[in-house]
Amino acid sequence: MPVKPYQQELLLDFRHTREASVKMCQPLFTEDYIPQPAEFTSPPKWNLAHTTWFFETFILEPFDASYELYNKAFPFLFNSYYQWTGERIARNQRGSITRPTVGEVYKYRLYVDNHLEALLQSKLLPHDIINLILIGINHEEQHQELFYSDLKYTFSLNPLYPVYTERAMCEEGNAGDSSFIPFEAGIYEIGYQGNGFCYDNEQPIHRVYLPAFEIREKLVSNGEYLAFINDGGYTNFSFWHDEAWKWLHDNHIKHPLYWQKRGNKWFQYTLAGLRIINEADPLTHISYYEAFAFAQWKGCRLPTEFEWEVASIHISWGDRWEWTESAYLPYPGFNKPTGAIGEYNGKFMVNQKVLRGASVATVNNHSRKSYRNFFHPHLFWQFNGIRLSK
Amino acid sequence: MPVKPYQQELLLDFRHTREASVKMCQPLFTEDYIPQPAEFTSPPKWNLAHTTWFFETFILEPFDASYELYNKAFPFLFNSYYQWTGERIARNQRGSITRPTVGEVYKYRLYVDNHLEALLQSKLLPHDIINLILIGINHEEQHQELFYSDLKYTFSLNPLYPVYTERAMCEEGNAGDSSFIPFEAGIYEIGYQGNGFCYDNEQPIHRVYLPAFEIREKLVSNGEYLAFINDGGYTNFSFWHDEAWKWLHDNHIKHPLYWQKRGNKWFQYTLAGLRIINEADPLTHISYYEAFAFAQWKGCRLPTEFEWEVASIHISWGDRWEWTESAYLPYPGFNKPTGAIGEYNGKFMVNQKVLRGASVATVNNHSRKSYRNFFHPHLFWQFNGIRLSK
Amino acid sequence: MPVKPYQQELLLDFRHTREASVKMCQPLFTEDYIPQPAEFTSPPKWNLAHTTWFFETFILEPFDASYELYNKAFPFLFNSYYQWTGERIARNQRGSITRPTVGEVYKYRLYVDNHLEALLQSKLLPHDIINLILIGINHEEQHQELFYSDLKYTFSLNPLYPVYTERAMCEEGNAGDSSFIPFEAGIYEIGYQGNGFCYDNEQPIHRVYLPAFEIREKLVSNGEYLAFINDGGYTNFSFWHDEAWKWLHDNHIKHPLYWQKRGNKWFQYTLAGLRIINEADPLTHISYYEAFAFAQWKGCRLPTEFEWEVASIHISWGDRWEWTESAYLPYPGFNKPTGAIGEYNGKFMVNQKVLRGASVATVNNHSRKSYRNFFHPHLFWQFNGIRLSK
Amino acid sequence: MPVKPYQQELLLDFRHTREASVKMCQPLFTEDYIPQPAEFTSPPKWNLAHTTWFFETFILEPFDASYELYNKAFPFLFNSYYQWTGERIARNQRGSITRPTVGEVYKYRLYVDNHLEALLQSKLLPHDIINLILIGINHEEQHQELFYSDLKYTFSLNPLYPVYTERAMCEEGNAGDSSFIPFEAGIYEIGYQGNGFCYDNEQPIHRVYLPAFEIREKLVSNGEYLAFINDGGYTNFSFWHDEAWKWLHDNHIKHPLYWQKRGNKWFQYTLAGLRIINEADPLTHISYYEAFAFAQWKGCRLPTEFEWEVASIHISWGDRWEWTESAYLPYPGFNKPTGAIGEYNGKFMVNQKVLRGASVATVNNHSRKSYRNFFHPHLFWQFNGIRLSK
Repeated sequence: MPVKPYQQELLLDFRHTREASVKMCQPLFTEDYIPQPAEFTSPPKWNLAHTTWFFETFILEPFDASYELYNKAFPFLFNSYYQWTGERIARNQRGSITRPTVGEVYKYRLYVDNHLEALLQSKLLPHDIINLILIGINHEEQHQELFYSDLKYTFSLNPLYPVYTERAMCEEGNAGDSSFIPFEAGIYEIGYQGNGFCYDNEQPIHRVYLPAFEIREKLVSNGEYLAFINDGGYTNFSFWHDEAWKWLHDNHIKHPLYWQKRGNKWFQYTLAGLRIINEADPLTHISYYEAFAFAQWKGCRLPTEFEWEVASIHISWGDRWEWTESAYLPYPGFNKPTGAIGEYNGKFMVNQKVLRGASVATVNNHSRKSYRNFFHPHLFWQFNGIRLSK
Repeated sequence: MPVKPYQQELLLDFRHTREASVKMCQPLFTEDYIPQPAEFTSPPKWNLAHTTWFFETFILEPFDASYELYNKAFPFLFNSYYQWTGERIARNQRGSITRPTVGEVYKYRLYVDNHLEALLQSKLLPHDIINLILIGINHEEQHQELFYSDLKYTFSLNPLYPVYTERAMCEEGNAGDSSFIPFEAGIYEIGYQGNGFCYDNEQPIHRVYLPAFEIREKLVSNGEYLAFINDGGYTNFSFWHDEAWKWLHDNHIKHPLYWQKRGNKWFQYTLAGLRIINEADPLTHISYYEAFAFAQWKGCRLPTEFEWEVASIHISWGDRWEWTESAYLPYPGFNKPTGAIGEYNGKFMVNQKVLRGASVATVNNHSRKSYRNFFHPHLFWQFNGIRLSK
Repeated sequence: MPVKPYQQELLLDFRHTREASVKMCQPLFTEDYIPQPAEFTSPPKWNLAHTTWFFETFILEPFDASYELYNKAFPFLFNSYYQWTGERIARNQRGSITRPTVGEVYKYRLYVDNHLEALLQSKLLPHDIINLILIGINHEEQHQELFYSDLKYTFSLNPLYPVYTERAMCEEGNAGDSSFIPFEAGIYEIGYQGNGFCYDNEQPIHRVYLPAFEIREKLVSNGEYLAFINDGGYTNFSFWHDEAWKWLHDNHIKHPLYWQKRGNKWFQYTLAGLRIINEADPLTHISYYEAFAFAQWKGCRLPTEFEWEVASIHISWGDRWEWTESAYLPYPGFNKPTGAIGEYNGKFMVNQKVLRGASVATVNNHSRKSYRNFFHPHLFWQFNGIRLSK
Repeated sequence: MPVKPYQQELLLDFRHTREASVKMCQPLFTEDYIPQPAEFTSPPKWNLAHTTWFFETFILEPFDASYELYNKAFPFLFNSYYQWTGERIARNQRGSITRPTVGEVYKYRLYVDNHLEALLQSKLLPHDIINLILIGINHEEQHQELFYSDLKYTFSLNPLYPVYTERAMCEEGNAGDSSFIPFEAGIYEIGYQGNGFCYDNEQPIHRVYLPAFEIREKLVSNGEYLAFINDGGYTNFSFWHDEAWKWLHDNHIKHPLYWQKRGNKWFQYTLAGLRIINEADPLTHISYYEAFAFAQWKGCRLPTEFEWEVASIHISWGDRWEWTESAYLPYPGFNKPTGAIGEYNGKFMVNQKVLRGASVATVNNHSRKSYRNFFHPHLFWQFNGIRLSK
């Protein structure tokens, strides 16, 4: 049955995204799909099922009258945080659930995919549903990125240092001291202005007045950060926020998450195994606290998210999510959508910091200059880095 | 010996502030000076000694060559959080220290006062020292405000509901539904512009672009908040931030801090004892989480700190510290001062929310439209309230 | 090469035990081998590897000169609590380790088995080594029992209620009110007296004076315990120890671990899935706290471990580990062996309660009347039950 | 009005005990009456009021028809742990309560004392009430002992090291290596056999069979313990229980509670201030964990409580409570009394260790060879020490 070309294109996007999730799991053994070593990570199996549950819950159940749930217990198991849609397993127990098996989860994916593709092909869908499918695709892309950071965290705890891929993914780059690019003071427009997909938190478009600023063209390198460590950066309180200093001591933190010193050489765990640190590569896996302290030591600061957005066409970005000095807050005029989709972004707008850019773990096309990522300032397991400003 | 009139005036300010701290303790019994029931409070005795230690440490020790410490163990006991000045007692153990006695602390005050007054009268002091004394006075005024909120918290735990003063201080007011005042979009100047004292975090003066907004003339009243409670405000997740919802449940929070229901009447603990709630009074002792949820329920929002500062000459304020939607961040161009005074404000600029205004517990003249107070979003023991915006 | 018949018999025992561990895993999917939902449980994969590590570390490494470690990282991963043998993974991170895979662990077992069998067949081994092998076999039998209780705990968290085996293993029995058997006061001998294997904590043989006592022939049934619940047993503090009462409230405990009420029917999770409770079956999965409170309610008490041992030939036992009133303490004259084996029992002799008997999960022949099992009083995930005394 | 001589004697005992509690507070400042630095301690003011509440609640209220409560809020404030008698303030908030003032508590004591003396003088009281008064007196004597250990704990946290009394109370003694006294195997009678007062946990009298044993005449000295420290006692896991080893590391414990090293000299905080350690004095303020580890290192063990009771007439005791190897369990035939008094001892009979003897802080006549004190094995703030056995 003929549908609008746009819907046809969406179908291809959907397929592509769904296939990509499966493909990135190919190097895994069944065992790797299960553990959740920290509350902030999720098991690969859970990711595969949760992204499927998203389509089932927000599209098939409400809009496909003939749809029957694949399994009535799955919503409890694979809901993440949506209060709207009912009870769910405690967040820190995702790693305790062995059934459904990995094979069964792949069947679940197939079942939902078939129904969703049939829906897309059956008739002209109203804008609301199209938009929900788009959110579902973007949601899955976010989980594809989390897949890498979560897997890396799990593997890093294992003294066997498992190799996900021999290609030293995610760790190479071109960073380090470079010139600062100046920008003039003035009023700038902020927020997503295109015709494609964006999240609700990237809008409304609004004006911001920025004083003159400078931003560095390149990211901070491992070598620069090493100089900070060697200069006693982790033992001088004056670079750190008060609560960062407490966090350092409570958690015995003395270097970036995956770094370790053997003899007098620094190594880091990567998805290609334990590797010697290349000083020219861009630094990664640090918390906001560390990013801020490093910037203080360097006599600089982190950019605000608005400076970053304005500067984005003049700098090289995309390898690391970049911590900004901005708190994650609603844009002027922002209103949470009603219903479950309203829980997507708005309810997290307190006590978190905005990151801008994208990382080597980000899916192609899942980045844009208005994209706002956000994490609590102590979290460090994403592929995040530092850009300096002044 | 004759000194500049300005220094003479400072001397009077100093004396006035020091006397005020003593005067507000007059209704206390010795027993009341000791406890610290929560880490965020401090005992009255500690407050009296800590504000004294501040003058001793930052002015007398470095600038009065003949000064001898009153007691060498006191800096350990009465330093609050200044890493720069050395080790100090664990923050949560301030209530375990019975000696020096209250009487001894008053002697300590006298000793330091005499030396500081002598210094002020002895010669013309350079600007740096004058400024430090001004900070010391303002610092003591902040602790005078904390004195009331900390004492209220301690007393509220006691089923005898002790009375600090029969005058129902801090609780009466003139609040509730009122008109919204409109402001035009445009560029506004933010930050302290006068010639008097201000904290480093109120500067540099800088420009901010604000979209058009409206702000309510009066604060939210107890009656309005009661309507929120009666409408199920504490049981509907959609008004709350994700982490606020967790906080509600972990702490079994169902109403403002000092409220309790007896039969079908609501009471609140006040420094004049347990009193029936007057619906026309301004609401107080709520967290940011609650302020935000209430605003959501009301179909409004909290103002930003910039909106507040711009609007401040058109609204009635001064009874409650008012939560804003703004995160506590440095103004553009802010640099932490070097040395211990640099620890005063800068190191707290993460994960906190700005409050604007002042409260019934604020010392006269310790308020100005550019003043930035800040607390973590879950804290509720200050005299804070809600102003709505849209 | 001919070896002593005794050694030949040991070889058969070894083989039998090693095969049994593998056999009990046959109903598992690979996913089931991984999780550790609570610190007191261990993953099946870890159990399989840890029991293998035990033979490798305590027999092959020290006594087989030609033996080479299968993998140098395994001791770190599969040591449980032996300080003597070096560093090991944090106890609560056993579920985070995906590699070695299950298949690799089976290879590790084969490798160690082959070497150990070769050692047993190569020459006449001294008594010390024979004894260590015996300990290794008994150690593995203990982990076989833990396999069932740990797996049941993991599966119970899953709303799909996985079935390990359709045979309703471990839950049927013959319990409930029965006559009490009287015993006379006098001196009795306690401790293992045979020629076979026993643990160090079952000796030395020693005398104990017991006042006259009576002990019930049969275990407490589900039905009896239900009467306790229905009579408000969980809400009357007078039956409970002070710290048990706190435990009840902190953990919201209102019934045995795996029980749940649906409508007005009680069900329990079993390794055969969720089943309606049969009132005649022996009660299981309760803490010492609950056992004690039930006995108080019934006007009885729990037996001491000495009473139990004396009575053991006159009662029916073997379905449930039975909580005793005795604390786990060394017998008079007990001395911890030196070296790592000394860590097996002695270092746990504080704050734990003795359990006597055996359970449906216990391997055949791994029970004897002198056997002393021990757990902290709040633990309830073993197949433990209640026998009354007075 | 004439009453039985026995009742007259009880009256004198009552008066004497009540006066003693007041007298031991004479060196205190008002400030010292308030803090509770750890949950296991109680403020002096609370002790004074709680012992008064005991007489009010268990004697005056039920048995003196004309008695009126001094203040209806006091039972909530000064009940310790009696579920039977109703709600009470959280145990860890005793230090937050400033009112009633110390002076008011002394009035409360006077009020209750007058009523209780009047009751004792008014008529012949039945045995039950007499016994409750006796329990009340003994209860107050226990709190007199706790007064010293709690005050010492509070003062020890203060870098000013306050002096309670210049007389170096509680720290001098006559300890160290001495001969072991042998006892023959056999049946011994255990439990209180006199006509005076004893607690319910000291009975019933019962027989115990003891193998032959030896017990040291004198307590372990500071010097002996120092040798243990110097020999690496705190860093060799083989002396310690598994959970003791964890406790050591979690709490960074490297020496007894009040010891500190300055330069190369050891000091300890005493109620006479900070004093250099005298090696001949008996060791004090150690946990059971430490006592056990020391005994292991010395090649000895701790006595059981039964050995201790049997040996008590041949050894010198009374300076230190002595940890035994025995768990705190009911004697054969023990039954908890019904009602609130039944909560006095029975509900603590799990997870605690028995101590025998008495200490320098024990009130005269509040010691007897059958007395059973009990604490959790990690607690160390009592005046406890070590006696060796083998």
